[in-house]
This record gives sequence, C-alpha cells and structure tokens, in this order.
Amino acid sequence: MKKFINNPEKVVDEMLEGLLLAHGDQLRSVRSDNRGLVRADAPVQGKVGIATGGGSGHLPLFLGYVGKGMLDGVAVGDIFASPSSRVMLDVTRAINGGKGVLYIYGNYGGDVMNFDAAAELADLEGIRVESVVATDDVASMPKGNESQRRGVAGLFYLYKLAAAKADTGADLDEVKRIAVKANDRVRSMGVALSPCVLPAVGRPTFEIGEDDMEIGMGIHGEPGIHRGKIRTADEVAQTLVQSILEDMPIPAGDQVSVLINGLGATPLEELYIIYRAVHKLLEERGIRIYNRYIGEFATSMEMAGLSVSILHLDDELRELLDAPFETPFRMQE
Amino acid sequence: MKKFINNPEKVVDEMLEGLLLAHGDQLRSVRSDNRGLVRADAPVQGKVGIATGGGSGHLPLFLGYVGKGMLDGVAVGDIFASPSSRVMLDVTRAINGGKGVLYIYGNYGGDVMNFDAAAELADLEGIRVESVVATDDVASMPKGNESQRRGVAGLFYLYKLAAAKADTGADLDEVKRIAVKANDRVRSMGVALSPCVLPAVGRPTFEIGEDDMEIGMGIHGEPGIHRGKIRTADEVAQTLVQSILEDMPIPAGDQVSVLINGLGATPLEELYIIYRAVHKLLEERGIRIYNRYIGEFATSMEMAGLSVSILHLDDELRELLDAPFETPFRMQE
Repeated sequence: MKKFINNPEKVVDEMLEGLLLAHGDQLRSVRSDNRGLVRADAPVQGKVGIATGGGSGHLPLFLGYVGKGMLDGVAVGDIFASPSSRVMLDVTRAINGGKGVLYIYGNYGGDVMNFDAAAELADLEGIRVESVVATDDVASMPKGNESQRRGVAGLFYLYKLAAAKADTGADLDEVKRIAVKANDRVRSMGVALSPCVLPAVGRPTFEIGEDDMEIGMGIHGEPGIHRGKIRTADEVAQTLVQSILEDMPIPAGDQVSVLINGLGATPLEELYIIYRAVHKLLEERGIRIYNRYIGEFATSMEMAGLSVSILHLDDELRELLDAPFETPFRMQE
Repeated sequence: MKKFINNPEKVVDEMLEGLLLAHGDQLRSVRSDNRGLVRADAPVQGKVGIATGGGSGHLPLFLGYVGKGMLDGVAVGDIFASPSSRVMLDVTRAINGGKGVLYIYGNYGGDVMNFDAAAELADLEGIRVESVVATDDVASMPKGNESQRRGVAGLFYLYKLAAAKADTGADLDEVKRIAVKANDRVRSMGVALSPCVLPAVGRPTFEIGEDDMEIGMGIHGEPGIHRGKIRTADEVAQTLVQSILEDMPIPAGDQVSVLINGLGATPLEELYIIYRAVHKLLEERGIRIYNRYIGEFATSMEMAGLSVSILHLDDELRELLDAPFETPFRMQE
C-alpha cells in the first residue's frame, strides 16, 4: 500500500489535526476527538443551522463544505464509515442558532440510522431538526425507486442552495423545501477506472480489469450497472448524459448547472475533455448551461473515475446558486 | 492505458476546447489552434503584462493561473513539451498594455530556448520583454548551482507576487524584481510514489517498485536523489523540510508561506497528514506560518506524490501575497 500516512489506524485523526492546524481560523472542533467540526463563528444566531456528515475518504466531501454561505457543521466518520449519533448531536447543539437545524447527507444505511437517532436526541433537548437525504445517483436504483438511491456529488448542490436560503433568514421549513427541491432536480452518474485502497485494509476495495471500466459505480466501490472495455471520453459522456436525461427529462430552452467531479486520480485535463463532450450534448438538445463546476468535489481517495451531475435550474435555484460562499476548500465555478 | 480521452493525439486540443467552452467569459484564445490563451480583457492598458507557458499535463499549471490578479497569458505546449516561440510571440502581442511583458516560467531547456527566441522577436516589434526563470526544485541540483535547478510548484508564488506587483501599476523592472526576489526566497522538494502515463505513448513514464518511493523526483519523472522503501508521512515531511531549510536557512521568528502540492493521484487526506507534520516541524524551529495552500497546484497527470514549497516572507512579499486574485481554477489559501 502506497500512501503518505503514519499509522493506518490514525489516518482520520491525523488528517483532522492537519486540517485544524491549517484552517483553525475558519473551523472549530467541538469534541476532544475532533470528530465534530463547526464554523468558527457557530452558532449563527437567527439562522437555520445546517449539518452534514459521513465517512472520511471523500475530501472535500464532507468537511470541505463547512464555511460562510455553506454548512455550519459536520460529523466526521472513519474512512467510509458513518459517524456516531453522539457526534452528530454535539454538532447539532453547537450550530443551533435558535431556528432549528437541517441535516443534509447522502443516503447510506449507517448515516440514516445515526442521523435519525441524533435528531430524536436533539428533539428531547428542544432543538427542532429536519432531514433531507440526497439520492442523486441514477445508477444506484431504477426509476420509480428514487428514494432508495445513493447520494453522491449532487450533494454539493443541496448544500449550496439550502445554505444560501438559510442565509436569507428563512425558517427551517423553507430551507428544507429548497434542499428537497434541489434533490428532486439533480441527477448524477459516475464511472470508475480503478479502485481505491482503504488504509486499514491495505488492498484495493475491488478488482477491475486492465482495460475495463465500470459505469454507475458508487463512491465506495458499490457495483454499477455495466462493466466492460473502456470507451472513449465522448462515449462515456454520452452514456452518462443520456442516462441522466432519460431519468429526468429537461425541456429545450431550460437552464442547468453542470458538475464534472473527479473521483481522485483522474487528471483535470480529462475532466475538461469530458466537459467538452457534455457541453456539446446539452447544446444539441437545446439545454442551456448556466454555469459549471469542474474539479474534485466528492472523491474516493485515489480512485480513478469521474461523475457528471446535472441540476435543472429555475429562477429560484439560479438566484440561490449565485450567492457567494467561502470555505477552506473553496470550490468555485 | 486507462484515460478518459478520445484520440491520444488530440488530448491537448480537446482539453483546450473544453476549457474555452467552460471559461470563455474569463479566457480568450488568440490563435486558431487555441495554443495561446489570454485574459478575456487583455491587454490591460498601463499594466505590465505577465505571460507563462510550458508543456501540458500539469493542470492547473500553466493555464490555470491566467486571470485577474494573476497572469495575462499563457503559451500551451503538447503534453510535457514546450510551446513554440511563435505561440509565445502571439501571446506577448495580445497582452502588451504598453508597459512591456514579463515572462515567468520553469527552467526547462525547450522553454528557455523558445521564450528567449520569442523575446527577441517581440523586441523587434518594439515590445520590451524581460524573463524570470523559476528554479525552486532543491533536489534537481546541489547548492551552488541554484540557477540550473528546475522550476516546480514554487512557480505559483512567482506568479502570484509578480502579478500583485503589476496590479499596483509598477514598471517592468519593479515587477521583475519581485519575481526574482520570490524565486530567491522559495524552495520546493517533491516525492513520487507512482508514474504517470503519456497519452501518446500509452505506458508509464518510469518504473518504481511496489513498495518504493523516489525523493526529489521532478514533475516529468526526472530522477530524484534517493529511491528506497516508502517511509511514514512524518519521515517524508521531515526529509523534505530539512532539505529545504538546509538549502535556505530561515531564522526563528520569521514568517513563511507553505504550499503542499499534490502531483495528481494523491488524496487530499494525505496532503493534510503531511501538512500536519510540516506545521509541527516549522513550529519546532520557531518559524511562523503566515498562510498555507493545500491542494493540486502543479501536477503530473495521474502521478501519485506531492511536493512541499516554502516561501520565506518579508513585509513586502506578505502584502503582495494578500492581494486577491481570480482564475477559473480554485486556488485559494
């Protein structure tokens, strides 16, 4: 296993320590084990607090989205493992500014269980909590079973839009409405070329042939919908865009935001070659690209691969997307 | 070869096309082959123009540094190959705002030859050009031969500081002085775990054993100074920091900026584990970290590895470092 680590069991602790040494002016730890992080100025009074959380190994997901104009707090798990409800509760307490707290996270069993438990505990303390679970991964369940799909890079849009709404002073129901609307209007699909290596295990999470690719693979290596010989960038883009638009038709003339997300080892050069193809495919259909994000937004450590997410905009979402934000990992258009 | 490409011979063309489709509001092509790119608002009258250039495959280097508060233009070569002097000349013409043009680029034979030829051609047209060649890679030549060293991620600081100076309305000599000063006060050193694959060749640029690492390796796979078994993150950080500080001693109490640069496939999690160690090592020596940049600033496609750069600040450089900038790529403290 080739990694810049010290002790495989201490990867998350040391990563968090480095992060707090680097960004202590923007982030604050609410636990001695650093597994709960919040904005340095949390709680923001009179604003709905927004928390997320999930396993480590996906930077900038989830940590990287805490900051002004973005999230208020994050519960940090071990590599690819859910954080505990206890951590989530600590984060909830630290970010409650009197208007309640919204949880936004990806649809994975452990996370759902623990966030639900944390919400109940918070409720007992008089903190109102609502939850929105991201289910943007088209490949993870067929149409009709949308609510059982996994959440992947599309989470970025749920965070961004709900946070912008919270910054307007909106109440918890309104902020939740935006997160739900964003989730209803975003779809993602990914493709993987190579596995990643869990530090504590020391070997690849799955095997994939020398010339193969897997379409629809999840960000922890969950099986996709098709494995076969690697195809050209244009063919890959075509498959991803077509699957997304079949699942969520977008009328010609409407606007979208596009996110080309690298899973870890894929060079930015290749993401731009994919963007070129996605741009043309959308243009051919008369779909207008309002803006785009190209880079690493939700990774799987050193996995080679990428995902495409498309957010179907309307006037309300477009305005919220334009609001500025600032995090230690600023991801800009 | 596993890459998201169409035709290995068209990687750079298609990447550039994608880039211009994505960022046409910020970047403008000055040639039909798109090999010369400038700020959309170039030339900026009354400001020294700054150009860079070099081979492709290092994103965000070199393209990613064109923008407000940063560079005015860039000459783009094929993968790991110098752009031609003709391209550089076209860029030079397009960014000359009447106060001359400064070239800032890395010390590689082809680039030096072509930039020098372009400067002569520009001179014949009445455009005054000066050049500063980055030589920050400590491992590429022993002390005493600083001017023969290669330029790597430390280029970021030369760009940033010279550009901030140019924005004050300073003349060409003054802007050049800042770039020279930045180069004199920055040192970098890298370590590689795995090679990258040139699209047109289709196989790894070099071989490295399953459990080996190479310290001091260049961003094109140039040989380093030590190959051996992979060590812990803390040991790697110690070797890099020690080599840099032996080459450029920094008195206790002085301030530095630190850049932890991923070479491509190395997860951000590992860069933070390295930052943690670097932070502590500098702290032990009483060196104060003014700010830090952690992410991908100069890559080698899918090479796994990283580099550490340290810039020795003084009041003048610190003020220039603080000036805002805006490029299509996210590079932020």
